[in-house]
Amino acid sequence: MKVGIVGANGYSGLELIRLLTNHPVAEIEMLISHSTSGQSIKTIYPHLKDICEMDLEDLTIDEVAGRVELLFFATPSGVSSHYIASLIDKGIPCIDLSGDHRLLDPATYQAWYHKEPAPIKALNQAVYGLSEFFQTEIKDAQLIANPGCYPTATLLGILPALKKGFINKDSIIIDAKSGLSGAGRGTSLMTHFAETNDNLKAYNLGSHQHIPEIEQTLKKVTQLETRVTFSTHLVPMTRGIMCTIYAKVMGSQTTEDFIKEYKTFYKNSPFVRIREAGQWPTTKDVSGSNYCDIGFNVDERTGQVTIVSVIDNLVKGAAGQAIQNFNLMNGLDQQMGLKQVPMYP
Amino acid sequence: MKVGIVGANGYSGLELIRLLTNHPVAEIEMLISHSTSGQSIKTIYPHLKDICEMDLEDLTIDEVAGRVELLFFATPSGVSSHYIASLIDKGIPCIDLSGDHRLLDPATYQAWYHKEPAPIKALNQAVYGLSEFFQTEIKDAQLIANPGCYPTATLLGILPALKKGFINKDSIIIDAKSGLSGAGRGTSLMTHFAETNDNLKAYNLGSHQHIPEIEQTLKKVTQLETRVTFSTHLVPMTRGIMCTIYAKVMGSQTTEDFIKEYKTFYKNSPFVRIREAGQWPTTKDVSGSNYCDIGFNVDERTGQVTIVSVIDNLVKGAAGQAIQNFNLMNGLDQQMGLKQVPMYP
Amino acid sequence: MKVGIVGANGYSGLELIRLLTNHPVAEIEMLISHSTSGQSIKTIYPHLKDICEMDLEDLTIDEVAGRVELLFFATPSGVSSHYIASLIDKGIPCIDLSGDHRLLDPATYQAWYHKEPAPIKALNQAVYGLSEFFQTEIKDAQLIANPGCYPTATLLGILPALKKGFINKDSIIIDAKSGLSGAGRGTSLMTHFAETNDNLKAYNLGSHQHIPEIEQTLKKVTQLETRVTFSTHLVPMTRGIMCTIYAKVMGSQTTEDFIKEYKTFYKNSPFVRIREAGQWPTTKDVSGSNYCDIGFNVDERTGQVTIVSVIDNLVKGAAGQAIQNFNLMNGLDQQMGLKQVPMYP
Amino acid sequence: MKVGIVGANGYSGLELIRLLTNHPVAEIEMLISHSTSGQSIKTIYPHLKDICEMDLEDLTIDEVAGRVELLFFATPSGVSSHYIASLIDKGIPCIDLSGDHRLLDPATYQAWYHKEPAPIKALNQAVYGLSEFFQTEIKDAQLIANPGCYPTATLLGILPALKKGFINKDSIIIDAKSGLSGAGRGTSLMTHFAETNDNLKAYNLGSHQHIPEIEQTLKKVTQLETRVTFSTHLVPMTRGIMCTIYAKVMGSQTTEDFIKEYKTFYKNSPFVRIREAGQWPTTKDVSGSNYCDIGFNVDERTGQVTIVSVIDNLVKGAAGQAIQNFNLMNGLDQQMGLKQVPMYP
Repeated sequence: MKVGIVGANGYSGLELIRLLTNHPVAEIEMLISHSTSGQSIKTIYPHLKDICEMDLEDLTIDEVAGRVELLFFATPSGVSSHYIASLIDKGIPCIDLSGDHRLLDPATYQAWYHKEPAPIKALNQAVYGLSEFFQTEIKDAQLIANPGCYPTATLLGILPALKKGFINKDSIIIDAKSGLSGAGRGTSLMTHFAETNDNLKAYNLGSHQHIPEIEQTLKKVTQLETRVTFSTHLVPMTRGIMCTIYAKVMGSQTTEDFIKEYKTFYKNSPFVRIREAGQWPTTKDVSGSNYCDIGFNVDERTGQVTIVSVIDNLVKGAAGQAIQNFNLMNGLDQQMGLKQVPMYP
Repeated sequence: MKVGIVGANGYSGLELIRLLTNHPVAEIEMLISHSTSGQSIKTIYPHLKDICEMDLEDLTIDEVAGRVELLFFATPSGVSSHYIASLIDKGIPCIDLSGDHRLLDPATYQAWYHKEPAPIKALNQAVYGLSEFFQTEIKDAQLIANPGCYPTATLLGILPALKKGFINKDSIIIDAKSGLSGAGRGTSLMTHFAETNDNLKAYNLGSHQHIPEIEQTLKKVTQLETRVTFSTHLVPMTRGIMCTIYAKVMGSQTTEDFIKEYKTFYKNSPFVRIREAGQWPTTKDVSGSNYCDIGFNVDERTGQVTIVSVIDNLVKGAAGQAIQNFNLMNGLDQQMGLKQVPMYP
Repeated sequence: MKVGIVGANGYSGLELIRLLTNHPVAEIEMLISHSTSGQSIKTIYPHLKDICEMDLEDLTIDEVAGRVELLFFATPSGVSSHYIASLIDKGIPCIDLSGDHRLLDPATYQAWYHKEPAPIKALNQAVYGLSEFFQTEIKDAQLIANPGCYPTATLLGILPALKKGFINKDSIIIDAKSGLSGAGRGTSLMTHFAETNDNLKAYNLGSHQHIPEIEQTLKKVTQLETRVTFSTHLVPMTRGIMCTIYAKVMGSQTTEDFIKEYKTFYKNSPFVRIREAGQWPTTKDVSGSNYCDIGFNVDERTGQVTIVSVIDNLVKGAAGQAIQNFNLMNGLDQQMGLKQVPMYP
Repeated sequence: MKVGIVGANGYSGLELIRLLTNHPVAEIEMLISHSTSGQSIKTIYPHLKDICEMDLEDLTIDEVAGRVELLFFATPSGVSSHYIASLIDKGIPCIDLSGDHRLLDPATYQAWYHKEPAPIKALNQAVYGLSEFFQTEIKDAQLIANPGCYPTATLLGILPALKKGFINKDSIIIDAKSGLSGAGRGTSLMTHFAETNDNLKAYNLGSHQHIPEIEQTLKKVTQLETRVTFSTHLVPMTRGIMCTIYAKVMGSQTTEDFIKEYKTFYKNSPFVRIREAGQWPTTKDVSGSNYCDIGFNVDERTGQVTIVSVIDNLVKGAAGQAIQNFNLMNGLDQQMGLKQVPMYP
């Protein structure tokens, strides 16, 4: 099955190439990038020599429609919204890794992204691709709004507890930490090695565009209106996200109760792994893989639970979950092409 | 004025050497270490060649009493408690960088440190050396219990707001992140490079021994009984602590209100620097220096304030604050020997 | 085909688990470790949850002989030499990732390793497993002495030029740089994060035990007696080796001549990739993969060629090449199970 | 004594600020930067709050001449050559940290820097500021061409041996490794965190513009015409340069002979420290300080000596040596303001 990747020169696009190269069903037919079209992907990424040596092409809807059966968008926000409606019309299903089709309300998009929202019709067609929660919708979708990296780690960490009534919906605080690959390949002082190495930064406190995405999904799954406090930090590492989530425990649930509940909840979710009491996951535990590992601690002194959720931001937080959704859309085993063992150390 | 350093072979001891070498008044007379006595400090730390080439000695109370006028203890917990009472009796003031004399209640010490507490008499003599808050007591002290690294960053970040009634005492959550030098020089898998580099770990959730130290000091300053939720993380960097502190705002205070209040509160505290709105400190901003930098964000959507407080764990979190206390005890300018400009990048 | 891994708790053993988990033919039947026997591998490496949860066992030759068809030794030097002769006698082929069977002359082993050499009979049976050079011998071998990490990068970088007479055999200098995983999982100050991060160290100048291995193989392939100058450095990264090799050019060969010769030489070697002029490989270009990437620069001012050769020390430098040899021994495609795309970034 | 810093917004300029802030004689009067003039230095570098809060100004020769007594240029190559001749005419001595006045021959500058050379008159006035070798000339200089970072480490490592006739002048190979701050603050993929972290890169093999600077100085000191092979690598660390230097030993000199000779040679050079046999310096051993540490190994098997020389690229490789030269020009103790103890760990 022939697929194309728009934004193939960025890190999420590159990760799609890495994972799709060994996928038994999907075959990369087109690499698309406006800014680098005409070049070979090997020139940009010499490590792809002998693996993937295609030339990057410009995006033309008719051309694409004639050559691929599905298109991944691994573009910055504000790009895919210009193309996807037309592609869907031409019968080309799309998986959008950008934020353009995640927020149902155009005004909310505009307020948090400071950009023109996607057409309302496309927004209505979009299925939010948090694979563990929306498999039925994903199977029938023409357009997947692939979740953000922070929302994926956060939502997988918090939804079962909120749904089960273990935690107070008004007490949720998410202290999120990310490696630098999450900031993409565009150069800036924020991602300049000498400014970042051996350094820890807080940024975008209370204003990150992933906040409405989290709240919208919490509501969709639990019907509860929430407002979450959400802080982000840049950690001097390349890959990995850790969300340390705090919430007030509603009853007398213990650490073991949380563990038991989550194990049951995710028993059919091969990519979510629950840790035993006293063990918390590290970001390396999932590096290069599609896993989300989750650990718990209920502090009986304060009545707070701490939930630690980790993913590889480029895999479960981007390309891996996109392929998981691709598998689901096409009736394949959701693990197909995603059985990489975490690369440790 | 001749001083000695017990535990000179560890990182806090080494940092005392670095800072005291250029101190105008203090002069290092003895380097003490049981495990490495007889060796030259230069053998352990070749970078001290031509700077400090003394031999390490064993600790004998009479010997020490005859040669130094003050002793720094930069030892693991469970060591200084065996010596300090006798030293005070001999008239040798001590600054204890370990946790042995911080907790007033011996039972609390035993519960959190799992070790034998110090003699009650010494505990009663000890003054908690958070320099910005207890200058009067420090000036007259014979024994300083130098604060822990996490408590220093946390308390400087939270005390003015709690004292002023800006935040709810029952809502305090501290998400703490530390570089690896905080774990000391003892080797273990936890500090093994290949396990730690490019990796982020949560550890000791809800059980860190710095929790009672924080709560005891919050009470001492504000008379409020609190229970804080406290989580710790290891970040792949050498130096630096960041505490991201969350609390419920009591009234309608804004980010600017917090900034204004903290600027006023710390106007005579040269080592505390308050950031403007929208700017949050990074750990490199204080690297190698005795500063504590603090930034704020009030999230009006959730009614939570986020306070970001950073220090260099080996300086303001250990050796630097110890020297600040030394200066105060001896009637010197508290900044003496501590005017290092942060080393950036 | 059932295989076992001795030393499964170390990093090379762990990398064998990672790579063999998805190998189409080999199946891990036993994980063996004296020091951690009885534990589950998941306890040591939580990231293996749901992937490999076997218990570690002690090594008993009869037990092993009854259950596996081939054994990998990923042990420190001085271990495999006690077992392998007996295993071969029982008809169990072995691939030894340690240095115990690499040096043909027991006295040389003793001089460089400061340990008891392996039995002479085993040394005589051992085939040096540099896959690109000794495929015929490997196919028939019962015992593979899998090459060291530095020798692999060095020999692949230097052998074609030396064989072709492009470089002077008496002028070879190898400046080798390695990530910290090469030092294994044993903790020490040398691998302690705070001593190593943001730091660069030279070590073992002129005395590394990989020197005789390199010289022995240079002679075996080219019949030339050489003495190489070899220096090693520890770079603050987890994986990767770069050998920067200097040698006097014999004639008027240009950078292009080297590139052309190497492309021809390695045209049937899928794991060796030759860079174009002006491009030099980085260690990340091969991270997690079995590739060796090589670049060249002839400096016409000095008549020296610089050859830059990179591998992932745990893959082509250890477990990956071991599996490549396993494939060759069993008549399989040498790339089987080794098609991982380098993980970049 | 009032001084100004041109290029104060770059890393070398920033390091001048860090070091001059505590200098007893020099006082920063002007911070100059064309691209950021009008801003406060505190806006660019928040860590300078309360330490240095001056506004950056544009460079006007008359203005400068009226306000400062000496000017540091910490600018990219191709800038200072436009200003310095005029400043000297106005009687303002300059210390140029850029490469513009280092090469005596304008054609050589043009060939290696690909830029317009400085006026010949200025080149003739310039004194090469390798402090340990040209103190007499420096004392009388109006214009210091402050050495490059790689040349400083290389020349201090090699000159005594070459001068003494211990090594063959035609055999010199320098394998240089640098942290990323050496690439400056300008953003690019080469210094982008995700491309650089946990990665090791070779670059500019045989074509680095520091090559003619090294050869010119070797000749100036020893009267020997040399051609050195010089390779550069980027190491994932912020500060530090290590040059691993290889050369053929001329006679039967041992490691001890080299050590003895260098100790004698540098006995009046407080910033050069010689290591004992079997010990090699790490870059952290000099971090934040003006030291150059040097270690040796003579390999009797190959007749080669390996010399390992480390500096902090921003201190002895830039701002520190500039201040050392400032001290010498002004008849001050060369160590004034430069007694920082290396920051370890």
